[in-house]
Amino acid sequence: QTAPERKPRAHLIVSGNQELACEQQEFTVLKWKYGSSLKSNMNYTNGYLVISKSGDYFVYAQVTFRNHSLEKDNCSMVTHVTQTISRITSGYPRPITLLSSRSSIEKTLTWTHASYLGGVAKLNANDKLLVNVSNTKLVHTEPEQTFFGAFLI
Amino acid sequence: QTAPERKPRAHLIVSGNQELACEQQEFTVLKWKYGSSLKSNMNYTNGYLVISKSGDYFVYAQVTFRNHSLEKDNCSMVTHVTQTISRITSGYPRPITLLSSRSSIEKTLTWTHASYLGGVAKLNANDKLLVNVSNTKLVHTEPEQTFFGAFLI
Amino acid sequence: QTAPERKPRAHLIVSGNQELACEQQEFTVLKWKYGSSLKSNMNYTNGYLVISKSGDYFVYAQVTFRNHSLEKDNCSMVTHVTQTISRITSGYPRPITLLSSRSSIEKTLTWTHASYLGGVAKLNANDKLLVNVSNTKLVHTEPEQTFFGAFLI
Ligand SMILES: [Mg+2]
Repeated sequence: QTAPERKPRAHLIVSGNQELACEQQEFTVLKWKYGSSLKSNMNYTNGYLVISKSGDYFVYAQVTFRNHSLEKDNCSMVTHVTQTISRITSGYPRPITLLSSRSSIEKTLTWTHASYLGGVAKLNANDKLLVNVSNTKLVHTEPEQTFFGAFLI
Repeated sequence: QTAPERKPRAHLIVSGNQELACEQQEFTVLKWKYGSSLKSNMNYTNGYLVISKSGDYFVYAQVTFRNHSLEKDNCSMVTHVTQTISRITSGYPRPITLLSSRSSIEKTLTWTHASYLGGVAKLNANDKLLVNVSNTKLVHTEPEQTFFGAFLI
Repeated sequence: QTAPERKPRAHLIVSGNQELACEQQEFTVLKWKYGSSLKSNMNYTNGYLVISKSGDYFVYAQVTFRNHSLEKDNCSMVTHVTQTISRITSGYPRPITLLSSRSSIEKTLTWTHASYLGGVAKLNANDKLLVNVSNTKLVHTEPEQTFFGAFLI
């Protein structure tokens, strides 16, 4: 840390305002609070963490899912939740999935499930990182339970 | 790593001697083995990992919970387990929650659940990090299954 | 990163060709794709990530387990899955377990479970890292769902 420029890093906490996607839409990009978040040499825009310096990053996210209604759905006792960390890079038309976590949940009245992911990815300047989930309605928007970050290794 | 001083880092393994809190107490600070643990430029005292150098750290912990009794509790089929990584810093009277994981468990005879957390946090010299859990009795005290660490990024 | 030599790091994705161990064998070493993987100053041979430079590494792996048959096994409703990251080092006859995750699974028709581990370990040059699991047949061989990596901190 003798260099005048700090290594890029960020830790974002979940926003309380999420777009509630239609059920038909498979994935929705999660939104994060950026103003109060820890960050250095990284930018944020509309759900995307924007890389300013190329290199290998450790990228991580936790998404906590929980029952969003007190009514038990008797029709289906098992549901599946997915969180994915993806990369958008110039030259590719679609997001590239980096890491993904999928779990089956038995739908009890008060179920909660924390899904954690982390791994190293090679990123270029101007790449965008995003987290998407199978069902935005089920995301628990507590800052300590749903978060997203990265740091240059 | 050209500097003579090594970057702070630690990986602590769970102690076999935990304080068994009364059921009423919501959270108990987990204790760790420090003597045999990996550490450099970090200290430990009574459950707390003590920061000696300010900076942004990647902080992580896994807590494995498991059925501590062979008797099935027929009254409640679902329980919840929580692990939290918190920071104590001068000027704040109470621990500040950094990261938290909560999961519901269906109480089968031999249930086991591994709860993992990791993320970047800005820490000051003399800050203390701690892990607490919802129920110390359920913590599996195997060193590879319950651990706590941090490193300056 | 002013040094001409890059810090060791690797992120390997799961191979589609796994050895299917006999049920009796407790653990099987997972195989990884190395050619297309992110790596620098680390080697790979037959399931092992080989350390070329001594130091403290952050080591991580996710293994996704899922029902590998559409037939429901009515005899046992609960199964257990384990993933372990181990180290082989000269002077020790057996792998040393570094980190381990064990979870109980209720065997619904379409169960899926993502098991994540990560922590700091002191490694010597020529040490080998490996991931093994309780049941190779249950491992989901999607590259974003089962992965293994490490970086010098
Ligand atoms: Mg059940």
